Amino acid sequence: MNPPSTGQAPQTPRNRQRTRADRARQVAEVLRRQIASGSFTSGMLPDERTLIADFAVSRNTVREALGVLRGEGVVERRQGVGTVIVRRPFEHTLERLTGLAETLGTHGEVVNQVRVAGLVRPPGDVARKLDVPVGGRVVHIERLRLLDGVPLSLDLTYLAADIGEPLLTADLAGRDLFGLIEQSIGARLGSASVTMHAVGGDPHTCALLDIPAGSALFTVERLTRLPDGRPVDLEFLRIRGDRLAFRAELVRAGGGAR
Amino acid sequence: MNPPSTGQAPQTPRNRQRTRADRARQVAEVLRRQIASGSFTSGMLPDERTLIADFAVSRNTVREALGVLRGEGVVERRQGVGTVIVRRPFEHTLERLTGLAETLGTHGEVVNQVRVAGLVRPPGDVARKLDVPVGGRVVHIERLRLLDGVPLSLDLTYLAADIGEPLLTADLAGRDLFGLIEQSIGARLGSASVTMHAVGGDPHTCALLDIPAGSALFTVERLTRLPDGRPVDLEFLRIRGDRLAFRAELVRAGGGAR
Repeated sequence: MNPPSTGQAPQTPRNRQRTRADRARQVAEVLRRQIASGSFTSGMLPDERTLIADFAVSRNTVREALGVLRGEGVVERRQGVGTVIVRRPFEHTLERLTGLAETLGTHGEVVNQVRVAGLVRPPGDVARKLDVPVGGRVVHIERLRLLDGVPLSLDLTYLAADIGEPLLTADLAGRDLFGLIEQSIGARLGSASVTMHAVGGDPHTCALLDIPAGSALFTVERLTRLPDGRPVDLEFLRIRGDRLAFRAELVRAGGGAR
Repeated sequence: MNPPSTGQAPQTPRNRQRTRADRARQVAEVLRRQIASGSFTSGMLPDERTLIADFAVSRNTVREALGVLRGEGVVERRQGVGTVIVRRPFEHTLERLTGLAETLGTHGEVVNQVRVAGLVRPPGDVARKLDVPVGGRVVHIERLRLLDGVPLSLDLTYLAADIGEPLLTADLAGRDLFGLIEQSIGARLGSASVTMHAVGGDPHTCALLDIPAGSALFTVERLTRLPDGRPVDLEFLRIRGDRLAFRAELVRAGGGAR
């Protein structure tokens, strides 16, 4: 590996001697996205010869790239068949605030296993974010969410008590919280602040999500407000990386380019 | 674990017998976000007694929660000092389309180690996305990006040749591609379609990023267009999950609640 450039002055980049591992990784990168976006409608990757021609790399490089994808559990080699796509994540939009069942309801049945539902005294940070006075209570709900019977996410939710209490007798197993809240208050929710991390899951979370400990997860904190700006719904979502991807359209505007 | 509910009819959720592992995980969830958002300005977690009171859980539950965070490399226990925050990710906005140095330049120095830069014949999928005719060429750039000397992301870029060729002699080591493109074309870029995954990194990528194989990464595909809609910049970003988080504001609008 070259030492990092200093970036002090414009320089002419030189192509380095590229290793096969570099090329294989780059082929895997493009294939991974093609798989995720549903480019291969047959459910299989093209054969080696096609990949060699398409990527203009050697047979060994293609094999190493397929090895990377196999290692990630994205594809499997089946004797006499070829390289089969094992699973691709569903895409969830970040364009607007939506619940899981709203987005994925067309892909299959979303079912929620309710693990906790009740009133609790929230930790200080949660109380502050939900604007709950010291000593106040909030509704605490934890649900394991499954799509077509396979775990998708583990959602820990804190709701302002007046918003959350009516939900304790509602269909928490079958419906998104957003829909239940909106039905309960008779109005749409307003907006949400979202932060997303990628982490290797702890053993307990991964066991609940039915994946090996350390598997990659999205962890999302989402604070949702009423249209008047009042924060009412604080969620911590742990989402399986192999089952969901996020999609957004970004616009370049404001600020100076450097 | 309860069997999944069927979700066929509203039901009254019951609180299950909650294990300490559940509680510990939930405490870790809230603490992890407090750490990431910079709540603990001292660089240390509160002591056990404070955490016990704040979360209204037992000493053993707090210890198990801290164990989860230690296992993730988020905190460390230091003899005679307490629980120290090891690292928290920088936040990158998804509000508008920005380059890394634009967003993080105030946090430290972004330097790019240029690994590849040159003209190539692109794979079919890349050519289609960049609207390049069969047999056409594109500029191919790979850069390892470091913030204050520590790897942050590995960025694989394909640029339309007319946009990319002037960049081959530009300061690829010191500047964002967005800034270089805009300077070169004398206009702002338009918009981008972004897809984000969370994956466990392959061994080669992780070695370049200086993290253990299998560590959680964001993998981002970003297709950036000129203001007239022409796609010119296709990027595959591999971003260390421990160094970057994404932030967005979402609005609830349109569509029906279920």
